[in-house]
Amino acid sequence: MTLDDLPTPCLVLDRTILERNLRDMASAVARLGVPLRPHMKTAKSIDVARMALEGQPGGITVSTLAEAEYFLGHGITDMLYAVGITPQKLDRVLALNQAGARIIVITDDPMMADTIACRPMPPRTLIEIDSGEERGGVRPDSDRLLELAARLGGALAGVMTHAGHSYAGRSVPEMEQIAAGERDAIVGAATRLREAGHPISIVSAGSSPTARHAVDFAGVTELRAGVYMFGDLFQAEIETHGLDSIALTVLTSVIGHRPGKVLVDAGGIALSKDRSTEAVPHDYGFGLALDVAGRASYGYAVVRKAYQEHGVIEYEPETPIDLPVGARLRIAPNHVCMTAAAHDRYFVVDGDQEVSAIWYRVNGW
Amino acid sequence: MTLDDLPTPCLVLDRTILERNLRDMASAVARLGVPLRPHMKTAKSIDVARMALEGQPGGITVSTLAEAEYFLGHGITDMLYAVGITPQKLDRVLALNQAGARIIVITDDPMMADTIACRPMPPRTLIEIDSGEERGGVRPDSDRLLELAARLGGALAGVMTHAGHSYAGRSVPEMEQIAAGERDAIVGAATRLREAGHPISIVSAGSSPTARHAVDFAGVTELRAGVYMFGDLFQAEIETHGLDSIALTVLTSVIGHRPGKVLVDAGGIALSKDRSTEAVPHDYGFGLALDVAGRASYGYAVVRKAYQEHGVIEYEPETPIDLPVGARLRIAPNHVCMTAAAHDRYFVVDGDQEVSAIWYRVNGW
Repeated sequence: MTLDDLPTPCLVLDRTILERNLRDMASAVARLGVPLRPHMKTAKSIDVARMALEGQPGGITVSTLAEAEYFLGHGITDMLYAVGITPQKLDRVLALNQAGARIIVITDDPMMADTIACRPMPPRTLIEIDSGEERGGVRPDSDRLLELAARLGGALAGVMTHAGHSYAGRSVPEMEQIAAGERDAIVGAATRLREAGHPISIVSAGSSPTARHAVDFAGVTELRAGVYMFGDLFQAEIETHGLDSIALTVLTSVIGHRPGKVLVDAGGIALSKDRSTEAVPHDYGFGLALDVAGRASYGYAVVRKAYQEHGVIEYEPETPIDLPVGARLRIAPNHVCMTAAAHDRYFVVDGDQEVSAIWYRVNGW
Repeated sequence: MTLDDLPTPCLVLDRTILERNLRDMASAVARLGVPLRPHMKTAKSIDVARMALEGQPGGITVSTLAEAEYFLGHGITDMLYAVGITPQKLDRVLALNQAGARIIVITDDPMMADTIACRPMPPRTLIEIDSGEERGGVRPDSDRLLELAARLGGALAGVMTHAGHSYAGRSVPEMEQIAAGERDAIVGAATRLREAGHPISIVSAGSSPTARHAVDFAGVTELRAGVYMFGDLFQAEIETHGLDSIALTVLTSVIGHRPGKVLVDAGGIALSKDRSTEAVPHDYGFGLALDVAGRASYGYAVVRKAYQEHGVIEYEPETPIDLPVGARLRIAPNHVCMTAAAHDRYFVVDGDQEVSAIWYRVNGW
C-alpha cells in the first residue's frame, strides 16, 4: 500500500523523522543529566510511546484520563496526569490506581488538596508551580505553596511546572533564559518545601523548547515534553527544531482549481483551525503544502482558508501547483497536537511513500 | 444521570432547542415552497437526521464518505456528497451505490466529468456553481458550464451551489440579498443548461442564513442547510437565529482560578480553535461561558485562551464565576460544526440537567 492508495484526508507519519526527533531529544536531556517523562498528549499512541521511552525510566505524561486508561491497558503504569485534578477525576484516578496504575496528579487548589488528602490511598500529588506562564500553578515564593503542602500531607510527592511561556520565545538564547527561569522556579519551590520539612522526590519541569535548549537543569528530576516527537511549523519557527523535522503531515487530494489556488479535501477538521503561526515570522495560514513525497516543492504554498472539509492553498506564480483533481499533496501542520486530534490513526512511512504500518491513537476524554 | 455525573469535557445537546430550531427551519423552507435536504455535516448523527427529516422528502447532504457509509447503514439512501468528487472517492461512491445507496456527486472539473461519464452506472452528478463564494464551482454564465454538461452527458442530473458568502452578511436585509443572488445564479445555470438541451431535475442551493432569510427561491428544487440544527455564536451574531437557539454546548469543569479568570478542562481540542466570532460585533474568543443550566449567568464571560486541554475564561468583575474546582459550566461554541467534531457522542437533555439519551456521531473520513 502506498500513499496513493489511502483515503484522504489522513495522517502520514514519517518514522525516519520521528526516530531522529526522538534521538535528538534523548541526547538533549542526556546532556542535562535529566531523564525524560515523554508527554503523550501529541502522539497518543502506544507505538510512539514505546519508541519515546527507549533509554528512559518508563514513566509518561498524559493530558487526559482516556490516555491514562489506554496506556495502562498497554502496560504502562507510571503516569503523570498533567492537568489540574478535580474531585470527579480523582475518583477515576483512584480506580485506575487500584487496577495497577500509579498515576500522579497535580493541583494548585487548597480545597482540592484537602479532598486528595482525605481519600484512603491518595495518589502521589505534585503541587503545580507557575514558572511564568501564568496559566495554572502557584508562584514558588507564595504562601500558598506551603499551605498546599501542609494540606496535602503524606500525599505530597513533589512539584511540577510547565514553561508554556517558552512558546513566546523566538530564539535559542531566549529559550535558554526561559529554561533557566523554569529551573529556578521549580527547584526554588522544591527547596522551600524541603526546608519546611516536606520530603520532595519529584521535581518535574519541561516543554519541548526548554527541554531542547536548556543549559542546566540541576535539581530537576524529570523533563516532560511531547510536541518534539512530531514537530510542526510553529516549533520550527521558534527554533525547537528545523523545518525538515516535521514527522507528521496531512495527506490530502486536490479537489479543484482557481487562479493561483488549489482546493484540497483537508479543511478545518482535518488540519484544525489552529493559527499558531500567526504570531511568528512566517505565517503558514492553516499549514504549508508539500508534494506527496513530503518535499517543499511548491515554495510558500499555504493553506489560506480552511472550511469544514475544504482547504484553499494559495501558491506563488513561480511555484504553481499544477496537479489534476485526485492528485495528492501533504500539508505540514501549524500545531501538530491539534491537527492529530481529529484523526484516529497514523499511516506510517519510512522516508518514502510505502505504508509500512498503521498505528492507532486514543482520542477523547 | 445528570450533567453532574458526566465526565468532562463533553457535548450537551438540548433537545428542546434542537426541536425548535428544526421547526423554525421547516417553517422557513415551507414558506418558500422548497423542500429541505438537511446537511448532516454538523450533527453527523442518525438520531438528529431522523428529526431533521420530519416532513421532508428524505434525502440528506453529507460532507464525508464516512457519513455516507454510516447513514446508508441506518437506511438513508438518497444522499448528496457536497464536496468535489475525486477519482478515488468516485470508486467508493460507486461501491456504496451498488450496496443500495443513491449518492449524488458534484464536480466543476472537466477531466473529472470525463472520468465520471466513462464509468458504467455513473452516479447522478451535479455541476457545482459559484454563486459568489469563490470557493468551488463555475460561474453560471461561463463557457465551462456548458462544457461540463457536454462531458457529463447522461450522468448530469442538475446543478448545486452553496452561498457560503452569506457568512459575510451581517443583517437580515443583506441575507435576503445574498439569497436572491444565490437563487439567480443557480436558476440561471439550470435555465442555460435546459436551453442547451440538458434535462435538469435537481437545482440545489442553500446555507443556513440564506435558507432562513430568503424571500423567494422559485426554481430551486431543494435547500441544503446544517448548522441551523444546533446553532452557534457566529450564526447568532449574523442573525441566522437568536442567542437562545444554541442547542449544543460543551460541559466543562473548573480546574483552577486566577484573578478575574477561571481555568476549565475544555481547551482547544474540546472547543476547537475556531475563531469565527473574531469577525463579528461580539468577539466570543473560543466560546461563551454559561452556567450548568445553560443560562448566561456570567454576562460576557469568554474563553480567551485555549490550550490543548485548558481553557481560560475571563469574566467581568460584576459577574464573577465563583465556583469551586470540579463545579460545572457550559460553553456555547463559536462554530458548532468544528466544536462537535472532536467528540464522539451527545449527552441529550430536555431543557433541564437530566441526561435522557446518548446519541453517537460519525467522525473521520
